[in-house]
Amino acid sequence: MIFRQLIDKETSTYTYILGDADSGVALIIDPVIDQVERDIKILAELGLTLTHTLDTHVHADHITGSGVLRERLGAKTVVSTRAKVKCADIDAQQGQTIAFGAHSLEIRLTPGHTSSCMSFVVVNGDTTMVFSGDALFVRGCGRTDFQQGSPSDLYDSVHNEIYSLPDDTLVYPGHDYKGHTVSTVAEEKAHNPRLNLGIDKAGFSVIMDGLKLAYPKKIKESLPANMACGEIKPKTEGMEA
Amino acid sequence: MIFRQLIDKETSTYTYILGDADSGVALIIDPVIDQVERDIKILAELGLTLTHTLDTHVHADHITGSGVLRERLGAKTVVSTRAKVKCADIDAQQGQTIAFGAHSLEIRLTPGHTSSCMSFVVVNGDTTMVFSGDALFVRGCGRTDFQQGSPSDLYDSVHNEIYSLPDDTLVYPGHDYKGHTVSTVAEEKAHNPRLNLGIDKAGFSVIMDGLKLAYPKKIKESLPANMACGEIKPKTEGMEA
Repeated sequence: MIFRQLIDKETSTYTYILGDADSGVALIIDPVIDQVERDIKILAELGLTLTHTLDTHVHADHITGSGVLRERLGAKTVVSTRAKVKCADIDAQQGQTIAFGAHSLEIRLTPGHTSSCMSFVVVNGDTTMVFSGDALFVRGCGRTDFQQGSPSDLYDSVHNEIYSLPDDTLVYPGHDYKGHTVSTVAEEKAHNPRLNLGIDKAGFSVIMDGLKLAYPKKIKESLPANMACGEIKPKTEGMEA
Repeated sequence: MIFRQLIDKETSTYTYILGDADSGVALIIDPVIDQVERDIKILAELGLTLTHTLDTHVHADHITGSGVLRERLGAKTVVSTRAKVKCADIDAQQGQTIAFGAHSLEIRLTPGHTSSCMSFVVVNGDTTMVFSGDALFVRGCGRTDFQQGSPSDLYDSVHNEIYSLPDDTLVYPGHDYKGHTVSTVAEEKAHNPRLNLGIDKAGFSVIMDGLKLAYPKKIKESLPANMACGEIKPKTEGMEA
């Protein structure tokens, strides 16, 4: 398996390329529109043909590269069925798998940061990897105060869909703001300040409801664009998300 | 083996933790002084005892965390013998190895970006990793216009000490400014615009001599501090590097 973690520094977003070395088939998770040229170049240099782009959710902080990658490379766009994104080629369901060559990615719906969040599980030999989007960060998690966010849903998603994976599962987050690139399920169970095993759902909700975060700067631009797979439509009145 | 890649976003510097899961012994490569609290926290959470800090070279763009990590955790500082850093505990030589539990790191002197640059090779099962510092970047390399830099030396270092490793060796650079985290020897031999196998030493020197880069902003502060393992001494006249 070919694996690459890529960073969009402006938004601290991680993009992941997962490829099958033998067949040359690849997926990309959470491409950022501003980095599409970089991503197309690396795919070409690695000899990979992109078949699918997967968005862990409808992002509020950046615009997806999925539409451009479909246009340029013919890759199908995969978004949670709960997002009701009309432009998506595949409305992803719980338990659905996306094959890439001899490998396979399993979709787990992990709402809570937004109602349409998904995580992706890939098993490669002895290694299990979960791409947790904004459900679970290294020592953190996504906020729950917009886009149908819900601390109760997020708590259940992380405990039922991510913490049920083997303890040595590598956790690859959607963002990191302190420079971490990866963690493990065991580490987060022990050390996540919001989601360690000593915190119950009520305690987690108190933490999340008390965050008082500023509204995301790019949300007005990002949400409508991402509902259109990254197409940036001219702004019109009444467009606010 | 426990492995973590960490990022200092301000300077796009990569720090690496290499640990032995059984003995709990760990090394750190290129710690950044501003990130020392993060690094101490992650070492503690991973249950690791730091025995050595290794600087790939005397950095011009940031200050090493090696002195603070020695003071706080007792870790020995490892710097190239060519750097003549008086504060170093170990003056590293070509071919020297540093053990961490059952694992081992091999030192290769790779001058050219600076005269004191080193790369580190670690073999873990079927995987070979090289921590190439500023000798080799993903699709690039360190500049050669100060600190006894030399395009001729850098060309020889990369070709003799890094490109002689197996083609599937993972290349972990000291920096990346476009959001790449890793590459392979095969990829760089094929796609590095300065150091692909189609470019000879004369061609490489023409490229490097033509770069006309701005002088590093932090060099006046960084070099004297790094010659003292990160200790920031009061500025005095005539201190310019």
